Amino acid sequence: MLDVAVIGGGPAALSAALNCRQRNKSVTVFGRSLDSSLLFAAEKVDNYLGMPDIGGEELLNAFYAHAIKNGVEFRECRITQIVSMGEYYVINADNEFIQAKAIILATGLSKSKGIPGEMEYLGKGVSYCATCDGMLYRGKKVAVVAENSEGEAEANFLADICSEVIYVPLYHPVMELKDNIQIMDGKPKSVVGEKEKVSALELTEDTIPCDGIFFAKNSMPPESLLFGLQTEGKNIAVNRKMETNLPRVYAAGDCTGAPYQIAKAVGEGLVAALSAVAAIDEMERNAK
Amino acid sequence: MLDVAVIGGGPAALSAALNCRQRNKSVTVFGRSLDSSLLFAAEKVDNYLGMPDIGGEELLNAFYAHAIKNGVEFRECRITQIVSMGEYYVINADNEFIQAKAIILATGLSKSKGIPGEMEYLGKGVSYCATCDGMLYRGKKVAVVAENSEGEAEANFLADICSEVIYVPLYHPVMELKDNIQIMDGKPKSVVGEKEKVSALELTEDTIPCDGIFFAKNSMPPESLLFGLQTEGKNIAVNRKMETNLPRVYAAGDCTGAPYQIAKAVGEGLVAALSAVAAIDEMERNAK
Repeated sequence: MLDVAVIGGGPAALSAALNCRQRNKSVTVFGRSLDSSLLFAAEKVDNYLGMPDIGGEELLNAFYAHAIKNGVEFRECRITQIVSMGEYYVINADNEFIQAKAIILATGLSKSKGIPGEMEYLGKGVSYCATCDGMLYRGKKVAVVAENSEGEAEANFLADICSEVIYVPLYHPVMELKDNIQIMDGKPKSVVGEKEKVSALELTEDTIPCDGIFFAKNSMPPESLLFGLQTEGKNIAVNRKMETNLPRVYAAGDCTGAPYQIAKAVGEGLVAALSAVAAIDEMERNAK
Repeated sequence: MLDVAVIGGGPAALSAALNCRQRNKSVTVFGRSLDSSLLFAAEKVDNYLGMPDIGGEELLNAFYAHAIKNGVEFRECRITQIVSMGEYYVINADNEFIQAKAIILATGLSKSKGIPGEMEYLGKGVSYCATCDGMLYRGKKVAVVAENSEGEAEANFLADICSEVIYVPLYHPVMELKDNIQIMDGKPKSVVGEKEKVSALELTEDTIPCDGIFFAKNSMPPESLLFGLQTEGKNIAVNRKMETNLPRVYAAGDCTGAPYQIAKAVGEGLVAALSAVAAIDEMERNAK
């Protein structure tokens, strides 16, 4: 079991992971590729104290090198869900299930809160993981809304289980879908429900009556990753120790709100790491 | 008038000052010499992301060089008092009075809360500045408690005004005191008062009846620098924007509490700077 799982890949994630290693904890950073950090694209940075006038890519490379030198492990993957098991958390990383004692969310700027109804019906017909929840829709009709081609695998899996699968691609081209999947164009407008259950997906021009809606997203709003996580607007709510409302779950960097700056992210990553380490140590002392 | 006065000299102060300059504000760092930062003495630092395996002195020098390159000004001095004038603050820097629109406190780890009664009688007989308050004790008896030889100048000044000056040096040797000053040995134990006024200084072995007590300290508890500043234990109370309870006064780094780490200090310095800049801009917009 991992001591700490860090979700992200920017400065906050790397600082958190580095500082977990400094305290001798095992840590893996789960994230998209290196170049997905916003910092990668920055032409010049001159306000991270001690490293004047540096390009974003060069700075990010220096950050990675520092983390790797200290034994931080990286895993390029998409995290669809994190579930609390009381004493530890289980992370769904591309459908491999990894256990960790503590979680540090450094997921960056959340691009969307989803469409109206999406959060409200999460777990009541809305899902972000076909492998996890597909069986609940055996013999039923579902829609799959996909921001990228990873949605095709989800849809193909569901096509073997469900009576009908409607595929709404928000990208192109669509590469490989089973024959019994119907493609519909349009932008998702809202999730419609009845009696606490999803009843339809409303598009700009059509409405698809259905029992379930699966979203395959480029980035997940963090509160949909982790059930019950408290947010303030589009930020994860944290205190000065970078604690969220969930036990042994911390957040750092842009996902906790403005200013969206490297020094803030690096500082918060450190604080989150030390808080996580202290909580793990305390839990293990109490277990003895 | 300065836009921002930063009090300190460690990583939080330098990051705050750098980021004020990045937003085109004038800024001066008021502090003791470079080597007074705790970081100066650190043999090796390996958890400030991007700058692996570096000596404390080398890291601090890189920090200073970065700040100086961006136009940060430095002034080596002792700050004894900061007074609010409503629209701006006045800083007493070695008895020169400097105006600033906003203050960032990055005073480091507070070494003491003073002795019992010290805070309670601040402004009621306890003072940290003979030049400011000496005239209030004309013809009266005062004690001067000095952690360093700067107390001698304070005592010599008071000796011309007061009826009697007792000098309690906590260092040695004592260099140059006027003849009418009496030296007493012992450690200060408490400030004693009667009817909301100082009546005596209690030492370990003696008690000195007096009307006023002047403290000359190596480092000042921040709440004695700035009247009404809210603290939590020995830390300055701040929110996530690094705002204190006073308008346009911010704090960053070790003085806001644990963890006492460079990355936290640098991140908080940045946040304090951006909050200060935003508040100054808003004040100036409203004044138009």
